[in-house]
Amino acid sequence: MATCERVIVSPQGDYIWVTMNHPERRNALSREMLRELQKSLTEVADSRARGIVLAAKGPVFSSGHDFADVLALDVQGARELLQLCTDVMRLLESVPQVVVARVQGLATAAGCQLVASCDLAVAGDRAGFALPGGKGGWFCHTPAVPVARSIGRKRLMEMALTGDVIDARTALDWGLINQVVPDGELDTAVEELLTRATRGSAASKALGKRTLYEQLDRPEAEAYDIACRVMADSSQTPAAREGITSFLEKRPPHWPQ
Amino acid sequence: MATCERVIVSPQGDYIWVTMNHPERRNALSREMLRELQKSLTEVADSRARGIVLAAKGPVFSSGHDFADVLALDVQGARELLQLCTDVMRLLESVPQVVVARVQGLATAAGCQLVASCDLAVAGDRAGFALPGGKGGWFCHTPAVPVARSIGRKRLMEMALTGDVIDARTALDWGLINQVVPDGELDTAVEELLTRATRGSAASKALGKRTLYEQLDRPEAEAYDIACRVMADSSQTPAAREGITSFLEKRPPHWPQ
Amino acid sequence: MATCERVIVSPQGDYIWVTMNHPERRNALSREMLRELQKSLTEVADSRARGIVLAAKGPVFSSGHDFADVLALDVQGARELLQLCTDVMRLLESVPQVVVARVQGLATAAGCQLVASCDLAVAGDRAGFALPGGKGGWFCHTPAVPVARSIGRKRLMEMALTGDVIDARTALDWGLINQVVPDGELDTAVEELLTRATRGSAASKALGKRTLYEQLDRPEAEAYDIACRVMADSSQTPAAREGITSFLEKRPPHWPQ
Repeated sequence: MATCERVIVSPQGDYIWVTMNHPERRNALSREMLRELQKSLTEVADSRARGIVLAAKGPVFSSGHDFADVLALDVQGARELLQLCTDVMRLLESVPQVVVARVQGLATAAGCQLVASCDLAVAGDRAGFALPGGKGGWFCHTPAVPVARSIGRKRLMEMALTGDVIDARTALDWGLINQVVPDGELDTAVEELLTRATRGSAASKALGKRTLYEQLDRPEAEAYDIACRVMADSSQTPAAREGITSFLEKRPPHWPQ
Repeated sequence: MATCERVIVSPQGDYIWVTMNHPERRNALSREMLRELQKSLTEVADSRARGIVLAAKGPVFSSGHDFADVLALDVQGARELLQLCTDVMRLLESVPQVVVARVQGLATAAGCQLVASCDLAVAGDRAGFALPGGKGGWFCHTPAVPVARSIGRKRLMEMALTGDVIDARTALDWGLINQVVPDGELDTAVEELLTRATRGSAASKALGKRTLYEQLDRPEAEAYDIACRVMADSSQTPAAREGITSFLEKRPPHWPQ
Repeated sequence: MATCERVIVSPQGDYIWVTMNHPERRNALSREMLRELQKSLTEVADSRARGIVLAAKGPVFSSGHDFADVLALDVQGARELLQLCTDVMRLLESVPQVVVARVQGLATAAGCQLVASCDLAVAGDRAGFALPGGKGGWFCHTPAVPVARSIGRKRLMEMALTGDVIDARTALDWGLINQVVPDGELDTAVEELLTRATRGSAASKALGKRTLYEQLDRPEAEAYDIACRVMADSSQTPAAREGITSFLEKRPPHWPQ
């Protein structure tokens, strides 16, 4: 797996770290950055990695779209850029691996959307989150989509309409992230969460993740139709059989790959 | 109403306690247990009871599916078992009575789904909740359906992907349950909550409960269409008239049955 | 803009205060009150105001429907009243201005629905919120619609089935409101929040608000379709261009009207 210019892809044991590496531009999601994220995530999706850490170099996690890019675009260009951006966000949800955001600083606009689009998120205690389009220029329409699905409606409205930064503790309280730790403990906390979230059969976890995203935001009857079918079918998989058998035999499971 | 083998049905004043009674199997949701729950709830639904307590004997509330059952099933058998299980979960939502879960210990997998499917839930302070399929065997696809509709997305992902237990305080903070009390005060707290949740006209409450579940998880315009129609129609019921008249006459209401 | 009988409309700088003024009837949402709210909000929607404060005179914010009204209605009359009421609630969501509820006391039934329907809400520390139809008369079917979309399912069930009052701190914790302050600081807090929520281009904010309500409560793929299209189209607006340019030029923005 190659190390690209904007994005560093580094395997560490069972996990792959995908690190945005353009701190001098606050890891802005330029077209190049988005394309490299897309390429990296697509490659990792096909790998044997069990988990992905989405990380960033420098004091800012990501400031969202690169305005120098956007200024030059006509409406068709903006459509293409936003489609690419949305594809990257949805890729975080559709890759079979568990994805944890490691947020060491400010995550704003599409940068905040990145965090909301990861399955799980751990933030340093000086991290902050905002939808700054709410300050009155280019409104954060698309970043609000996954943020709305993580926090309540009144809190979404406050973030989206004011554009102001909420701190890591508030983000934790509102359910935008899973954990806050001192900056120096971020790597340890991310590894520990990922270890818990990726143990067992990777195939079982991948199916689980996919089905979760499918059943969310639907009337309960529809969600049950989806989940029942998948759960019955998956009862015959090697992972399910081993989970069930090892439990009955009171021994540790030996997970199939 | 009969006392069955796996499930004890015991009327207590206006309420009926439906108690899982298989502590030596951690109140696992075997086919027999599910059938007895289905039978008991169906009978109670047609009774004059105003409320239902879903309780359990022993140190574990319920550990979910009985793996000895599941191991013997082919995919068709698994489909039937999961359909039966889903029918029981949805029955908790569709019975006209208010249902409160009384959780004295661990509630895992479909046991956690039971709690999430009750209208209300009170837990002892040593209770715990988990979707242990997240440890990597048979993923908790269906238990995640009602859990997802009670807690936020990042928290759902954490429970579903790690499989780890969250304690009662965390479950309260995340909105999975309504109250945490010392174990010795569970019965009192359940009665108190049920008293408040069942007062007034049972017919009004039953219609209210049904309409709530119908309008949830839908775009707001659809939800309003449902709720407006029901609310207008129900304005002419004896319960609504008595509620309105007693308020205007500044006297306590005398609720019709 | 006229000052009506039941509702006082008072411009204050960039904002318009819409104040329910029938304290002797606990600001009940009689047909007259609803019609005046509808008229006032419709007029304000077309004005140059940037924000709206929904306020109330007296110790009660609003007690919901006027039962003296309702008692006289047949089912057709109830339908018309509830349709009018729903139209007012949805108007709070569809006006282009940011709407903040200023809640100084009890907000019950359709009065609680008013608070849930405003974009943002600030409450005094002695405010309370309830869906009292849960006490067993005329169930709060329609008020539960926006309340369900602000707080979690178990908390909704508790409010809707018990009818009991939750205090301002609990409402904040559950996400029904955005802020709690001492009663004496309500005006300041409302102004401060509104200042942050209305800065920048009013056109951008109006489009943002509308798109937020459109994409909520839908499967994520549908929400992205809506938000992507709007965000691309709006990239060419004067507000977006000024937001982007001023950021790149490191100068304060000069927002177009």
